[in-house]
Amino acid sequence: MSSSECIGKRLIKKDGLEKVTGRAIYGQDLVLPRMLYGKILYSMYPYARILSIDTSKAKRVPGVRVILTGYDIPEIRLGFLRDNYPLKKDVVRWTGDEIAAVAAESEEAAEEAIDLIEVEYEELDPVFTPEDALRPDAPILHEGRESNRIDEIIRTYVKGDVEEGFAESDVVLEETYELQHIQHCTMGTYNCTAAFDAFGRLTIWSPTQVPFIMQRDMAQILGMSGKDIRIVQPVIGGAFGKALDVYPFEVITVLLAKKARRPVKIVFTREEEFTVACKRQAAKITLKQGVTKDGLLKARKVDIIMNAGAYVSWGPLSSWTMVQTFGSFYKVPHISFRCVPVYTNMPICGSMRGYGNPQAHFALESQMDMLAEAIGMDPVEFRKKNSNTPNETTHQGIAITSCGYIECLEAASKDIGWKEKRGKKTQSGPNKVRGIGLAGMWHVGGGSRIYRSDGCGAIVKIDDFGNVILITGASEIGQGSDTSLCQIVAEVLGVPYEKVTLVNNDTDITPWDVGCHASRTTFICGKAALQAAQDVRSQLLKAAAEIFGTSVDELETKDGIIYPKDSPEKGMPYDKVVRKIHFRSGGDLIIGKGFYDPPTTLLSPKDSRGNVSAAYTFASQAVEVEVDTRTGRVEILRAAVAHDIGKVINPVGLEGQIEGGVVMAMGYGLYEETQIEEGRVINPNYADYHLPTSLDAPPINIKMVETNDPEGPFGAKGVGECAAIAFAPAIANAIYDAVGVRIYSLPITPEKVYRALQQKENQGQKKD
Amino acid sequence: MSSSECIGKRLIKKDGLEKVTGRAIYGQDLVLPRMLYGKILYSMYPYARILSIDTSKAKRVPGVRVILTGYDIPEIRLGFLRDNYPLKKDVVRWTGDEIAAVAAESEEAAEEAIDLIEVEYEELDPVFTPEDALRPDAPILHEGRESNRIDEIIRTYVKGDVEEGFAESDVVLEETYELQHIQHCTMGTYNCTAAFDAFGRLTIWSPTQVPFIMQRDMAQILGMSGKDIRIVQPVIGGAFGKALDVYPFEVITVLLAKKARRPVKIVFTREEEFTVACKRQAAKITLKQGVTKDGLLKARKVDIIMNAGAYVSWGPLSSWTMVQTFGSFYKVPHISFRCVPVYTNMPICGSMRGYGNPQAHFALESQMDMLAEAIGMDPVEFRKKNSNTPNETTHQGIAITSCGYIECLEAASKDIGWKEKRGKKTQSGPNKVRGIGLAGMWHVGGGSRIYRSDGCGAIVKIDDFGNVILITGASEIGQGSDTSLCQIVAEVLGVPYEKVTLVNNDTDITPWDVGCHASRTTFICGKAALQAAQDVRSQLLKAAAEIFGTSVDELETKDGIIYPKDSPEKGMPYDKVVRKIHFRSGGDLIIGKGFYDPPTTLLSPKDSRGNVSAAYTFASQAVEVEVDTRTGRVEILRAAVAHDIGKVINPVGLEGQIEGGVVMAMGYGLYEETQIEEGRVINPNYADYHLPTSLDAPPINIKMVETNDPEGPFGAKGVGECAAIAFAPAIANAIYDAVGVRIYSLPITPEKVYRALQQKENQGQKKD
Repeated sequence: MSSSECIGKRLIKKDGLEKVTGRAIYGQDLVLPRMLYGKILYSMYPYARILSIDTSKAKRVPGVRVILTGYDIPEIRLGFLRDNYPLKKDVVRWTGDEIAAVAAESEEAAEEAIDLIEVEYEELDPVFTPEDALRPDAPILHEGRESNRIDEIIRTYVKGDVEEGFAESDVVLEETYELQHIQHCTMGTYNCTAAFDAFGRLTIWSPTQVPFIMQRDMAQILGMSGKDIRIVQPVIGGAFGKALDVYPFEVITVLLAKKARRPVKIVFTREEEFTVACKRQAAKITLKQGVTKDGLLKARKVDIIMNAGAYVSWGPLSSWTMVQTFGSFYKVPHISFRCVPVYTNMPICGSMRGYGNPQAHFALESQMDMLAEAIGMDPVEFRKKNSNTPNETTHQGIAITSCGYIECLEAASKDIGWKEKRGKKTQSGPNKVRGIGLAGMWHVGGGSRIYRSDGCGAIVKIDDFGNVILITGASEIGQGSDTSLCQIVAEVLGVPYEKVTLVNNDTDITPWDVGCHASRTTFICGKAALQAAQDVRSQLLKAAAEIFGTSVDELETKDGIIYPKDSPEKGMPYDKVVRKIHFRSGGDLIIGKGFYDPPTTLLSPKDSRGNVSAAYTFASQAVEVEVDTRTGRVEILRAAVAHDIGKVINPVGLEGQIEGGVVMAMGYGLYEETQIEEGRVINPNYADYHLPTSLDAPPINIKMVETNDPEGPFGAKGVGECAAIAFAPAIANAIYDAVGVRIYSLPITPEKVYRALQQKENQGQKKD
Repeated sequence: MSSSECIGKRLIKKDGLEKVTGRAIYGQDLVLPRMLYGKILYSMYPYARILSIDTSKAKRVPGVRVILTGYDIPEIRLGFLRDNYPLKKDVVRWTGDEIAAVAAESEEAAEEAIDLIEVEYEELDPVFTPEDALRPDAPILHEGRESNRIDEIIRTYVKGDVEEGFAESDVVLEETYELQHIQHCTMGTYNCTAAFDAFGRLTIWSPTQVPFIMQRDMAQILGMSGKDIRIVQPVIGGAFGKALDVYPFEVITVLLAKKARRPVKIVFTREEEFTVACKRQAAKITLKQGVTKDGLLKARKVDIIMNAGAYVSWGPLSSWTMVQTFGSFYKVPHISFRCVPVYTNMPICGSMRGYGNPQAHFALESQMDMLAEAIGMDPVEFRKKNSNTPNETTHQGIAITSCGYIECLEAASKDIGWKEKRGKKTQSGPNKVRGIGLAGMWHVGGGSRIYRSDGCGAIVKIDDFGNVILITGASEIGQGSDTSLCQIVAEVLGVPYEKVTLVNNDTDITPWDVGCHASRTTFICGKAALQAAQDVRSQLLKAAAEIFGTSVDELETKDGIIYPKDSPEKGMPYDKVVRKIHFRSGGDLIIGKGFYDPPTTLLSPKDSRGNVSAAYTFASQAVEVEVDTRTGRVEILRAAVAHDIGKVINPVGLEGQIEGGVVMAMGYGLYEETQIEEGRVINPNYADYHLPTSLDAPPINIKMVETNDPEGPFGAKGVGECAAIAFAPAIANAIYDAVGVRIYSLPITPEKVYRALQQKENQGQKKD
């Protein structure tokens, strides 16, 4: 095998050309013969009792084939706590609650029918904040519960004694940080197409990130066997975590298709995407840390309250990630962590890139700077002093192997001009002050055992034309996994990257995979692909040994050619070896397989201990900002980020992930917020919801720290989420560096900065 | 493994419900985003020079996107002799010749444009019969050839010395039999959809019977690499051999898609199917055989002339089958065979169910009755006397293993009432006489080595739900192979048939298979599926042994449960074993594979020797007819057929194959003919082309002779074609039995019978 023909090369994205030329067939584009179009009617009120639903007018709309309400369907529950229903018939608990659904010959007919469905409500008094929802007189949103506090998923972690730690500290700080709801803002909106075959077997075309989990979940939800459900993924227009759970619209699509005995497709409008789709989990984090004057963290106490919304999707469970960050990021001997999710009449929250870590890091990395300032230490030095280290197993049982955090801190700070610019408050124009800031982060980078298996299977076949086909469980959601997996197979086999084709979108066909989450695909699915390719390589060598009449040991491969070491001129290309095996008497095909499940454990629900990942990634992201002191407006001038990703598989893909992550975190930090008034989203479009565009993106200097992870494929670790985690606190720290005000809630709007500046001025005037 | 839970059972057809409920998505139903509709302009004349093609008016039709003529495309040749072109620009050689093609936004626009294309021709003098085409003054239809005789594919076989054999014979008969053109008459017409991806990789959705051969052929035709071509089979509406070659419309679809940079679909109208699609090979067979008075065949001389039409597709190559039948069916010591195909300005001929054998058997089995009569021997006894026998290797090198021909002859003759009815000329009404007749047949039944590999690959995976998925190269064209393959897998694993799902329609996904032809699928693909299932079973047992802490030998399986022999109560279902393996530390998946290529050889093009199949099937079909002596009309009263198929996998499927074959052969024998006048098909519809319907079908008594083939899966042999071979000569023999006239050409129309009766009467009057 020739070394590194593919790994680390700037190869073109496998799925890129199809997408940029408009040829890719997304779920939205799907057309099936006899297909109907589905639409959903949502609740008018955040909290109300349904008195009646009248579909009589709607039924008369030409082209309408099926109308379903909660009265027409079996008792179906979904969601992590089975607290949600596809169609509500008694109480609605938020404005995204589904009340009725229509399937019609056209979208227009379905919409018209939806508009004609008449629902009579009795309005009830809603609760929108966890604090209100926990008041003794608050309405209990879910029947049969004692309170709106969701005790089943409260998460805690205790190590040592924080009070003892605080007592040993010279400085103790405590603040509360507030994180907003935001939207995933994928280019492609949610969609689902479902059809039953004549035997009652169900096929769902879904942009799910977790086809095999969806197969299992749908089976449980619908009371079917998983063997009767096939999930096919059309091309996916982005996901960022939004497609890890089964949501009511998907069950509705299936129920409509079942009733209609025809395929049904539902595609969300952009407005539905902003209003009824799950959000990034909002949270309020109260963080208290103690430190000695020489900069050693002694204790950390974390109290989090989460606005879970009306039903439990993945959002309120994102304490799973937070507890690891607060439990094990930096070395802290005494820790107390508690996270409490609470039902409200607000939007439901799902998973989103970073899953709890953008929230946790905003609090932690803001306070790291404040602690450093309080003891008069440079924030970079302070972080390095408390940094995790290679081959450290934390008291939580997290086994860190490769760890380049200190190198990341050094690289990012150097690149942003730490020494020259830090604390200078450079005036760059009238009312304009510049500052720099930095934050660190860690995240899982070697899978993440959320289910019993964190594995992935792969089949590699090589045909008569030398075509190498990788059939993998992995899901391509735009993140570039098709590309990195093909590179890995090409590298193992020593064939050109272009010769590798990938099949990955059908549960009937591909081997099992837990799905695309937790930045695991290159690491886990890459290892499975690597194994399958190695299996193919062994089979090729064995076949060639028979052809050449040698032993396998006497053979060598290079550039897709196998030859005896002592006579390279006899070299035979793979395709010829395949044909010789295929067309010889008796014949055979070359088909290899692999399955990789990392050596990790589940996080204990009892004590939050466990080594959930086979590798952890680290990064530091630095930023230079310019603050307009007259308006409070913050401009991002440039970013300098350094990531320990183990090993670069594809620099272009990695840069894309990191640049995208930085800009996403910039949106989280400065602009984005799903504004909800009285339970209604009031900015359900890109005009009112400020998503950063390419014009807003700053120059981003990326430094790759290659730590060559011992477990990852070719040393690689996951990178998908980690770029979106540290940038928001880095901005907060940079603003503080520029103008001396600290903002404790996101997004850091001009108004917040302006008011903080005003307040600071007032305080300054008072002191004077 | 519990024995025969599935094999031999009347299980429901896997693809049946989808089809009868109208849910199956055929190629005709396919809709791709941005898809265009293609139409083709064909020649006005059977032989002409194209002077000009004017597409200017056509281009102005709204919605027209691409118009192609032979001038717009690269030099592309196709067909077995590379004598055909997708679009003709100089000479047209038959009325099916393609001159121009249009791709438009709608079928209507494409049709309108086609109608507006103006072609100027110079008419040339055509030749329609081989005899005319071989005259010295005949036009040479293909430039550069010396004659219209297609020397490259003349086939001969010589064994012994026929003249010596005739000299040793007591009776020598010689007649010429004429076989007509007929159409496949599949429910679904030809169709093709093609699209290029952004990298230039081509996907073709085609109802081909041979996806991997199409991949290879298309690559050669288009000058592409096979690795850049993906063939996907939508549900196929019948094939019967018509989809074994690449035809111009398929290349045109690809060229239109390439030019348009959009998907293009072409679907044949029924009229196109009758006019321009390939036909069953027409032939004139002169057969001379000598026999001793005690009934031993001594010599057989065969001269066949084939009307190959304008270009060579598979039809003129069907001497491949004929030479085996004339060379090895019945034991004949002296044989001379020669088949000469000739170019004419007539339709091209392709493969069709039985591939040469319906023609060969009509001649042979008609003459067998005549020889028997000539020596005064019962035709059944005569056949039995000369029958092939088990474990016989013929002088042609054909190795017959299982052979139940004699049992078939005995069963069919008994069932039709041979002793009671034969020769009775029972008057059953005014001008109505009944008679019975019988014919025998043989055909390949264990694959057929036409290509270097006759193999098939299979992958079987079993998932957490116990879902068993067979990924096979096999093609389901309606013949029932999905069903039999799933039965085989279910049987090996001991799971219910319903738990087996099959994936078989995509060259990117499935392992290689040579395709669906020569009645090979159950035999060859069945063996591959069997191997893959056995591999899965071994893996399951190995896994279970680890779980139980026993050796594999100590385990037993029954009904999908594995248990230690000494403690059956510990039984664990497969799905649980799979989950235990899947979810254990490290994990693994159960994926098995198989590849089967039978121990056979190619037929030598030089001397027509070789054992092309791993098994041969035999049958005898008997029929009772009623002849209206006033009109010549023949009614089929009932059929009694006996087939040696080795072992019944699914009685329903087998009955369907046999009943369909009998009715198809009844159409061949009595009704069907593509009527061609001056090179034009004049009956291109079901009103004028008389296809037998279910109302015409007689009661068919089927007797299965199970010879338990030593090589076939569970003893099975192929059955697909064999039912369509012997019935036409059986009818001819029965007519002779009834009214004493022998018809030497098909179809046996009332007119032919009437004229023969008239002639007989005249001769009788003369004699008187």
